[in-house]
Amino acid sequence: MKALVYYDTKNAKVEEISEPRLTAGTIKVKVEYAGICGTDLHEYMHRSFVTEDKMILGHEFTGEVVEVGANVTRFKLGDRVAVEPIWGCGECAACKKGNYNTCPDMKSYGIHENGGFAEYVVVKEENVYLLPEGLSYELAALVEPTAVVLHAVRNSEFRVGDKVAIFGAGPIGLLLSETLRAAGASKIFVVEVNEKRRELAKQLGADIVIDPSQEDAVKVIQEMTNGGVDVAYDAAGIEVTFNNALECTKPNGEFMVVSVFSKPISYHPATQLISEKKITASLGYNFIFSEVIDLLAKGSINAEPVITNRISLEDIVEQGFEKLINDKNECKILVRP
Amino acid sequence: MKALVYYDTKNAKVEEISEPRLTAGTIKVKVEYAGICGTDLHEYMHRSFVTEDKMILGHEFTGEVVEVGANVTRFKLGDRVAVEPIWGCGECAACKKGNYNTCPDMKSYGIHENGGFAEYVVVKEENVYLLPEGLSYELAALVEPTAVVLHAVRNSEFRVGDKVAIFGAGPIGLLLSETLRAAGASKIFVVEVNEKRRELAKQLGADIVIDPSQEDAVKVIQEMTNGGVDVAYDAAGIEVTFNNALECTKPNGEFMVVSVFSKPISYHPATQLISEKKITASLGYNFIFSEVIDLLAKGSINAEPVITNRISLEDIVEQGFEKLINDKNECKILVRP
Repeated sequence: MKALVYYDTKNAKVEEISEPRLTAGTIKVKVEYAGICGTDLHEYMHRSFVTEDKMILGHEFTGEVVEVGANVTRFKLGDRVAVEPIWGCGECAACKKGNYNTCPDMKSYGIHENGGFAEYVVVKEENVYLLPEGLSYELAALVEPTAVVLHAVRNSEFRVGDKVAIFGAGPIGLLLSETLRAAGASKIFVVEVNEKRRELAKQLGADIVIDPSQEDAVKVIQEMTNGGVDVAYDAAGIEVTFNNALECTKPNGEFMVVSVFSKPISYHPATQLISEKKITASLGYNFIFSEVIDLLAKGSINAEPVITNRISLEDIVEQGFEKLINDKNECKILVRP
Repeated sequence: MKALVYYDTKNAKVEEISEPRLTAGTIKVKVEYAGICGTDLHEYMHRSFVTEDKMILGHEFTGEVVEVGANVTRFKLGDRVAVEPIWGCGECAACKKGNYNTCPDMKSYGIHENGGFAEYVVVKEENVYLLPEGLSYELAALVEPTAVVLHAVRNSEFRVGDKVAIFGAGPIGLLLSETLRAAGASKIFVVEVNEKRRELAKQLGADIVIDPSQEDAVKVIQEMTNGGVDVAYDAAGIEVTFNNALECTKPNGEFMVVSVFSKPISYHPATQLISEKKITASLGYNFIFSEVIDLLAKGSINAEPVITNRISLEDIVEQGFEKLINDKNECKILVRP
């Protein structure tokens, strides 16, 4: 089969390799669509999480069941499925409380075991979710990033009617905007430098979009909210968005980090926390794939505009990774093996 | 009367000045004891909050009612009282929700209006609380810092049975330890470099004291708690305590800042927040003086060991401010006008 084999920084190739084999309790999925995530780009640019010599990247994938191993009871050939890529050790305090997303030894398909940028992938039955008839494979490829966002919103103090701000309108920022719309936010601010992404934000729930290269986002938000939003989310992950998002949060409000920071930042606890703001963080998800699938299937969350391109697996490096790194007009690119 | 008049950095003198006058709705209190707070030291060392040319410092004070203004209904001559020093504008969103401690225009006796380092002070009736018979003036002088701590513990996610860590054993760190003991913490770690303060911590609730100059506090705490405490409190306010307190918090746990930071710090959102830790902050208190008075009066919180010295008002600069700045064996010094 064809697969994207990752070797090291800037060294990933589409190659012909042998198909993966089933073991007891596993399922072989023919991949229909796999989304490219910021984590894939990060790994491609600066090897970080992959420790094996070779790894098939890709952890946002969906497809059809083509083979089931011994002891598999819930799935049969032809089932349309989405795959939850992560799992915990099952033994630590976090896992025992159900928080496998914060397990210090968390693992993921596409990082620790072969992932979805391939014609076929073998996964554990417990990581597989059945898709309802109405949900297309394209939208199902967005279940994973939407789960990241739904977990963040559910774990923040957000309540229906709240005013919110989102810094950064990449796939996560856009899905946050759309999910907060679905959750009943009364006013959604999205702060983003790229014009195309600001346009997408307007299609995905944003009431007010701000270009921080033209306007003082903190000032605009504070004035329009009489002192700050209830919850601000950082989906960009740099020092300036961290400090601005914190600053435009109201006294006693919450600032949530949903982004991956690549380096330390400077911030002032005294000036920022003097009004008892909370800084929280959200990582991944747990036990939420079924709910995400339902919300996407019934259209409560309309994630479709996030998809800006569909490409074939052969083109993934040039038309996928390199394009996303160099062209911020692209947002979510789906790969079809 | 005698009072400590503050003019500017390192310029504060005990002087003979005229007694303050009553207006309607105010009460004149003969000060029995006034505690020296870190904020007083900060103002003495680096003028920060005082904007007037002259100000009588001191916001932790208690005494006897010696005169009442027109319209005062709840107090009479001879009443023993504690004074809550802060108030909000009453008009902003924070004030309207009862959070006058996070009012952007919050005011305080001893900073914006004359405070308790004087023989007499005039205060608004609404800021005055009656002391029960059993509560000494000395302990009543600790109501204010204990209110800071009770507000912090009540606003953190701490619950009876939790394991906690406190970084810094000055007055606030020590009162935190004692208050968390009263609140039923199952294990209290106190991290402090000064030996005398570690000894005080043992008298004030700490189960395990750690000298970070001799041991790796984070390692010790993580090993003894199987992965971190439920809540960690920073009562020191420097970069190393911020990062260590955050690090020794368990996944999904809370790190609360109770200290005033004097400059920005560097921290890494990715490595620290990858396990969904919360960073919260607590500032002052609201509507909690009655409860603090009850807890001190019935002995649920035994704050007495925090007091390391009693001095006269004449000696406040040399034996109070300068001593506290240069001798970390001192903790809470009470001034008797």
